[in-house]
Amino acid sequence: MSTVTTVDPRDGRRRETGLKETGDAAVESAVALAAESAEWLSGLGRLGRAGLLDAIAASLESRRTDLVATADSETGLGVARLDHELTRAITQFRMFGDVLRDGGYLEAAIDHAAETPLGPAPDVRRMLVPLGPVVVFGAGNFPFAFSVAGGDTASALAAGDPVIVKAHPSHPLTSHASAEAIAAAVRGMHGPAGVPAIVYGQPAGLVAVRHPAVRAVALTGSIGAARAIQAAIDERDDPIPLYGELSSANPVVILPSAAAGRGEQIAEGLFASFTGSGGQLCTKPGLAFVPSSPDGDRLVEALQKRVASAGGAVLLNERIRDAYAEREAELRRAGVRVSARPEIAPASGFTVAPALLEIERSRLSAEIADECFGPLMIVVRYDGVPDLDAALAVVPPSLTGSIHSGPGDDEAIVRRLAGELAARSGRIVFNGYPTGVRVSWAQHHGGPWPSTNSLHTSVGATAIRRFLRPLAWQDAPEWILPEELRDDFSGIVRRVDGRLVPGRP
Amino acid sequence: MSTVTTVDPRDGRRRETGLKETGDAAVESAVALAAESAEWLSGLGRLGRAGLLDAIAASLESRRTDLVATADSETGLGVARLDHELTRAITQFRMFGDVLRDGGYLEAAIDHAAETPLGPAPDVRRMLVPLGPVVVFGAGNFPFAFSVAGGDTASALAAGDPVIVKAHPSHPLTSHASAEAIAAAVRGMHGPAGVPAIVYGQPAGLVAVRHPAVRAVALTGSIGAARAIQAAIDERDDPIPLYGELSSANPVVILPSAAAGRGEQIAEGLFASFTGSGGQLCTKPGLAFVPSSPDGDRLVEALQKRVASAGGAVLLNERIRDAYAEREAELRRAGVRVSARPEIAPASGFTVAPALLEIERSRLSAEIADECFGPLMIVVRYDGVPDLDAALAVVPPSLTGSIHSGPGDDEAIVRRLAGELAARSGRIVFNGYPTGVRVSWAQHHGGPWPSTNSLHTSVGATAIRRFLRPLAWQDAPEWILPEELRDDFSGIVRRVDGRLVPGRP
Repeated sequence: MSTVTTVDPRDGRRRETGLKETGDAAVESAVALAAESAEWLSGLGRLGRAGLLDAIAASLESRRTDLVATADSETGLGVARLDHELTRAITQFRMFGDVLRDGGYLEAAIDHAAETPLGPAPDVRRMLVPLGPVVVFGAGNFPFAFSVAGGDTASALAAGDPVIVKAHPSHPLTSHASAEAIAAAVRGMHGPAGVPAIVYGQPAGLVAVRHPAVRAVALTGSIGAARAIQAAIDERDDPIPLYGELSSANPVVILPSAAAGRGEQIAEGLFASFTGSGGQLCTKPGLAFVPSSPDGDRLVEALQKRVASAGGAVLLNERIRDAYAEREAELRRAGVRVSARPEIAPASGFTVAPALLEIERSRLSAEIADECFGPLMIVVRYDGVPDLDAALAVVPPSLTGSIHSGPGDDEAIVRRLAGELAARSGRIVFNGYPTGVRVSWAQHHGGPWPSTNSLHTSVGATAIRRFLRPLAWQDAPEWILPEELRDDFSGIVRRVDGRLVPGRP
Repeated sequence: MSTVTTVDPRDGRRRETGLKETGDAAVESAVALAAESAEWLSGLGRLGRAGLLDAIAASLESRRTDLVATADSETGLGVARLDHELTRAITQFRMFGDVLRDGGYLEAAIDHAAETPLGPAPDVRRMLVPLGPVVVFGAGNFPFAFSVAGGDTASALAAGDPVIVKAHPSHPLTSHASAEAIAAAVRGMHGPAGVPAIVYGQPAGLVAVRHPAVRAVALTGSIGAARAIQAAIDERDDPIPLYGELSSANPVVILPSAAAGRGEQIAEGLFASFTGSGGQLCTKPGLAFVPSSPDGDRLVEALQKRVASAGGAVLLNERIRDAYAEREAELRRAGVRVSARPEIAPASGFTVAPALLEIERSRLSAEIADECFGPLMIVVRYDGVPDLDAALAVVPPSLTGSIHSGPGDDEAIVRRLAGELAARSGRIVFNGYPTGVRVSWAQHHGGPWPSTNSLHTSVGATAIRRFLRPLAWQDAPEWILPEELRDDFSGIVRRVDGRLVPGRP
């Protein structure tokens, strides 16, 4: 069995972790053990699981210093960013605790027996129930918030689903420590061993996906990874959903009046947004549409100044570093010119130079508009609004679309462009930047293919819907119904005979 | 281009319809025309679309006599059943009108800008928006309620999605007349031509599925049809969801005390449920678990008596008739014995004899438990509860699972069996029969694979969720937001800063 190594991307040095890639038999028993925990998770009930999520949040908090240091040594993302990300992961567990206490996520509904235009109708009650074991693939670029202790895990556990996490090879020790933090919280509540299950190695992840007990898969990763997982799903007897968050160009449109009034400020915002975390965020702005005008020139000059004096960015691993270099070369071959790029002294790790590229709108193609993972942004110079319409049509659908406008920009044009961006993304941002995804009830993180393959979000309260299925009870005796569907229960919002009845906690 | 024929299943006679199979170019333009109607549908707004659905209901009602007669001549399902089914279809359009007026389906949520543990957070607002054009495959066994004017069409139009319907070959004239009834309502509201689009022929359906503008497919049909559609989806550049309602064994468990106390009544209920509509309902009980006891014997005898004196059942088409005969022969070869079967005089159409088969629990296999489309039910005789546990484990997951119990049956056993059925179905029915699916807010029609491939229902108010996607607006100016997301709007329920605020109409 292969051993699992970890690499510090700052110096490229590889060291042993003491962990081993999980063999097929071990995956089988890990999934089986996880599946058995479904009864415990379900037995906790809604409020008990809220307590579990709070305990996990507290357990992560108590290990903050170690977790952040471990993640920093494995990802090079920096202590400040990782500290913030851990807070985000903790916030997610707490938010799903609130979601459980609220109970609206159950979509509870009661239709009492009635005479209808179709004759006498039985009593029917519906709510969402746990889907079953979920395999979560950790993301490289978010060692906390989209990995072992990330939003997929938090929402699946909230739903009452056992979780099998596949550790990302860029941070196995962080993954291991995160799983241990969750397991400690489970032990503290006298829960079973094997919650969460964790497996190491790509083959182990695919074995888990093929396991008959598994009911869904969540991935934040590349389209290539999604295809490999889908191929494993296709080998199963039964199809199961893959919720993939995959690739995103995140266009930002700057209208003339915005460029005129806030050019310097926008340059600063764009620079921070495309270079933060080494440009390795799924919401990184990959394309900025800037008017071909003196105001646009000034905006681009301000961007160039910042990029030219920027330091190197440490990327997560060798593969990403190589892909970044390759993609940049590809773009240059396709006729995209380098607008600014600092000289970075050669370093032993996976350090690269951020890059600002530039192209005329008329030369933009879907291939050029495609995502480049890393600190690279392409400025697309446009002449007028018809030019912009044509440009947006070749940008692949994305997680986000942003638009900057000023008092001099026609509202009808803003409305039309917002409509075009809305048709091709999951979140439209006004006078802001796509990075920094708020974790909240109203958030949506998911756009049309290729940004995701799903009609669901992976961030925010409604992410829980992915891991639930509806179940209806017809003419069920009161004592067999879940508490939330009994007539005398009033703790959560329910739809009773078609009318919404708010909960009275 | 091939002409489209129709067959009266009572006499097997084939006649021309005057319709033609839709050629590839015609499909392309039908989909393009349908896609263009998205703007009109969206422009109607929520309440305007509710009016459209009411107008469609009225249009169908005004053509009731013709529609029912046409459907009867094409399906042989009988005027009474078809009249009831048309009422159901009309009810569905009216129900989705109510869903639109209620507005809760939008899942509207507002998180105002705030200071959070993660720093200052932007204003984020979310609601569901139309997904885009939907291809609906009409079902053979429900010429109204699951076809051109069925629940998929009603929920897609309610969502604001253009619909392209693929007519089922068993009832092209009914499909054509249904599409015309909908189109008339659209014309009455000054809507565009091509709503709904309708195509004829299996190749045309698959061309529509491959069209880049199409965003989802809905099917009530066989697993084979689902595989063919999925293969067409796999040829697309982008994956789109297929919502399939496919195959279902619908086990009914009769516990000893129920058999003792209500044996005769249960026999009557089961007989009506498995022979109604020629046994061609997706919720037909295919398996009845009856105790091996004198009470069980009496129940089976009562069933036998009814079946032995039953008349022939007219099946929808030649393929179904042949498959029915083949499946019955297969079951007999597998050792299932004929318990009762009337002699039916040879007829020229697709008439078959209903069949009651019987087998011991110990000989039940997954192959035997699989769905048989048509008026056939297998009685499985069991000895005790452990015997039942083993039996339920081999039954394929289904749309429904039913359980009959009496005062003498242990509540703990009912609870455990209900749990087993719940794990393997989408609706559990107590002391009733699975057929006759109530159309209402709390209904769920969808179980684990192979009964469906989806976590969504195709019957009831929440079916609309299949045809919507979430969209978030970040820091959007008030004037660009949809009405339902503006601060001063109060007409529908919304989640504001995490708290549910009921609508004040």
